[in-house]
Amino acid sequence: MSTSTGTSTGVTAAREDRLWSVEEHLDDILGKIRPLEPIELQLLDAQGCVLVEDVTVPAALPPFDNSSMDGYAVRVADVEGAGEEFPAVLTIVGDIAAGSGELPAVGPGEAVRIMTGAPVPPGAEAVVPVEWTDGGTGGGPATTMAGQGGLPGGDDEDGGLGEVRVHRPVTARAHIRDRGSDVGAGEIAVRAGTVLGPSQLGLLAAVGRASVRVRPRPRVVVLSTGSELVPPGETLAAGQIHDSNSFMLTACARDAGAIAYRVGTVDDDPVTLRATLEDQLVRADAVVTSGGVSVGAYDVVKEALSGLAAEEGTVSFRRLAMQPGKPQGFGRIGPERTPLFALPGNPVSSYVSFELFVRPALRALMGLEPFADRRTVRAVCPEGVASSPKGRRQYLRGHYADGKVTTVGGASSHLVKALADANALIVVPEDAGSVAPGTEVDVVLLD
Amino acid sequence: MSTSTGTSTGVTAAREDRLWSVEEHLDDILGKIRPLEPIELQLLDAQGCVLVEDVTVPAALPPFDNSSMDGYAVRVADVEGAGEEFPAVLTIVGDIAAGSGELPAVGPGEAVRIMTGAPVPPGAEAVVPVEWTDGGTGGGPATTMAGQGGLPGGDDEDGGLGEVRVHRPVTARAHIRDRGSDVGAGEIAVRAGTVLGPSQLGLLAAVGRASVRVRPRPRVVVLSTGSELVPPGETLAAGQIHDSNSFMLTACARDAGAIAYRVGTVDDDPVTLRATLEDQLVRADAVVTSGGVSVGAYDVVKEALSGLAAEEGTVSFRRLAMQPGKPQGFGRIGPERTPLFALPGNPVSSYVSFELFVRPALRALMGLEPFADRRTVRAVCPEGVASSPKGRRQYLRGHYADGKVTTVGGASSHLVKALADANALIVVPEDAGSVAPGTEVDVVLLD
Repeated sequence: MSTSTGTSTGVTAAREDRLWSVEEHLDDILGKIRPLEPIELQLLDAQGCVLVEDVTVPAALPPFDNSSMDGYAVRVADVEGAGEEFPAVLTIVGDIAAGSGELPAVGPGEAVRIMTGAPVPPGAEAVVPVEWTDGGTGGGPATTMAGQGGLPGGDDEDGGLGEVRVHRPVTARAHIRDRGSDVGAGEIAVRAGTVLGPSQLGLLAAVGRASVRVRPRPRVVVLSTGSELVPPGETLAAGQIHDSNSFMLTACARDAGAIAYRVGTVDDDPVTLRATLEDQLVRADAVVTSGGVSVGAYDVVKEALSGLAAEEGTVSFRRLAMQPGKPQGFGRIGPERTPLFALPGNPVSSYVSFELFVRPALRALMGLEPFADRRTVRAVCPEGVASSPKGRRQYLRGHYADGKVTTVGGASSHLVKALADANALIVVPEDAGSVAPGTEVDVVLLD
Repeated sequence: MSTSTGTSTGVTAAREDRLWSVEEHLDDILGKIRPLEPIELQLLDAQGCVLVEDVTVPAALPPFDNSSMDGYAVRVADVEGAGEEFPAVLTIVGDIAAGSGELPAVGPGEAVRIMTGAPVPPGAEAVVPVEWTDGGTGGGPATTMAGQGGLPGGDDEDGGLGEVRVHRPVTARAHIRDRGSDVGAGEIAVRAGTVLGPSQLGLLAAVGRASVRVRPRPRVVVLSTGSELVPPGETLAAGQIHDSNSFMLTACARDAGAIAYRVGTVDDDPVTLRATLEDQLVRADAVVTSGGVSVGAYDVVKEALSGLAAEEGTVSFRRLAMQPGKPQGFGRIGPERTPLFALPGNPVSSYVSFELFVRPALRALMGLEPFADRRTVRAVCPEGVASSPKGRRQYLRGHYADGKVTTVGGASSHLVKALADANALIVVPEDAGSVAPGTEVDVVLLD
């Protein structure tokens, strides 16, 4: 029995005869996963990542009092009692665009044209929106301000900026955004532990940060094993099938937030497999294999990895009390003790195993809460489940809608079409030999 | 009034004096969006895309009868009545790994070792799992099969493969997956219109497809306008602020499924803006700008795009009955009539506008249902909302949890910190001047 004895000293026993529960296996995995070391990333490369530093605001935001409207910066007393019939007439003494550095002062009887976001000039106490004025045209209420270049309509004959008629009074500070009203200097803008989405990245940019320290996305190497596997697009010879797992699992890893590399297929040869793994480890934060983990004579992953020398790491192969996905391996290999998930080769088994074990682990590598991205709901199963293996938790493919779930295809783990038609996994507990029609069941939603 | 007259013939009126409802603006956008032309993409590049062809199964899946277990292919009559005390003893005449092309026939009294997924040989009627045998060892029930290379434990002295003791009978076809039991030749594997996730990609690979026709992800060019904008990481001079919108909106576009290019900031100069847009259009399926859409004298986007000649496209600027986000522009520009979204410059306004208008439009470009990725729920607002502008629908930042929502920060559209702290938008209808404490409101969940 060459595959299972693991005779050299210092190796982990390759055989674990007892059945492990789903939770025991998961706990073992998550207990051995350490979040990746943080790195400094440019803002847009950090999207979806977890911040590991409290980002403090270096200078108040906004950095200066600024106008919230296009209009005129005025002194409050000058427009007191203004109305459409008796407008306040003010002399325009300047023009402040957003980004202006030099600001004209506003004296009594004066106004300065000011654009949204532009700094409020000295002397001004409020901003009158352009809609409350004649816009400097000498006409009725304005809907726009004079255009750029030559200030048309506002220039008077002696080269001045003309006058503006104000039709409504304003209160002090009206239409002014106070310096620091968004966030003050020294406050924490974004706390460590926050997942960086668009609005958090916007805030980080606003406070002047071009890069931040985050836990990076894990780089995941995905490979299928099996001498029967041929890439899609190529013709099948007798006994061959197309490799699908490496595509599916790569897509699964990307969907979970990882940067995934599809290595493709490796023949059922332990020497080739070990050489491939050694090659790939330099770019891997995790490795996912499929196939070769069962009790057969050609179970290459088990053969190559169940008897590693101590300095190479350890991979344990075990039987789980679940269907599909009974045979599984997990361990850490190579100089960095890179987590390796040895999933079963049946497509449905590998998919379900990824969902239950690899997905949470990849999230843990990113510092994310492992289970926050999947919802388990209760749903009525009108047709029930005729039979389920006692002592093993069954994950059946299902279609969930409006609080109800129906099975899609049978329990057999080669039914890829049914998997592709499913949007949920129906969970039948270990102690249930069947589910009576109309009973409520746990359902894991897959999207 | 140089910005609004649009004097040349054949141009769309730049001013739309009436207020447009949110729905009218959205309908105008979606009515003008055509899904992108399909292209052929490699499977893993097609993740998240919509398939536009019915993919038919060229050959049955599985392509041949194969074993669902590691074990022994046998004739049913040979193991009838077998038990642990009186096992059936069969002569091993061959060995079939997965991928084997040549298959040894199973005659009366014979067995062939067979691995999971390997083709069932001629003459065999069922597979006996290895756990129901002695594994060819001559001992008790096996938990593994003989290893690779020399078939240890199975070879007998005259170079034969030895014998296996079978402890249990099997029924015909037991542990055999029938050819075509997953999906038959000529059936549709994946229908046009399906969004390709991991399991659909797995199925496509399984039926031999290396590439498929899908609608691609839109390429979105994002730029901020404003002479006051400085990239994060650089020091601010008087009157300047850091550009945050181009980062936030690029992240928003990626989050919506697009390939987004952050061009960065453009000064408030119409000539520069038009030159930049002309440059960028070659790589754009959509353009998103922020800033320069209001009534001020330096509203560069409006100035550059409201008076396009007919052959250049049209962009309409209008006022929406909403807060924030009242001033907006939308149109189609350039030789390909590329959709352009001219969002307001206030960060909160541009974020909310992206959510309401750009996100559904980008999904429509991909052929996805525009609103399927956002949920609107009813939630109790214990504190209520003190005031909301009559005649405009207000979208307030909120924090939603457990059926309740509370406002985060005020209504002011410069409050980026509050936006980053929010996970929902509270919708206050047009006809409501306030929300009484404890009332239910619509809440758009942002994650």
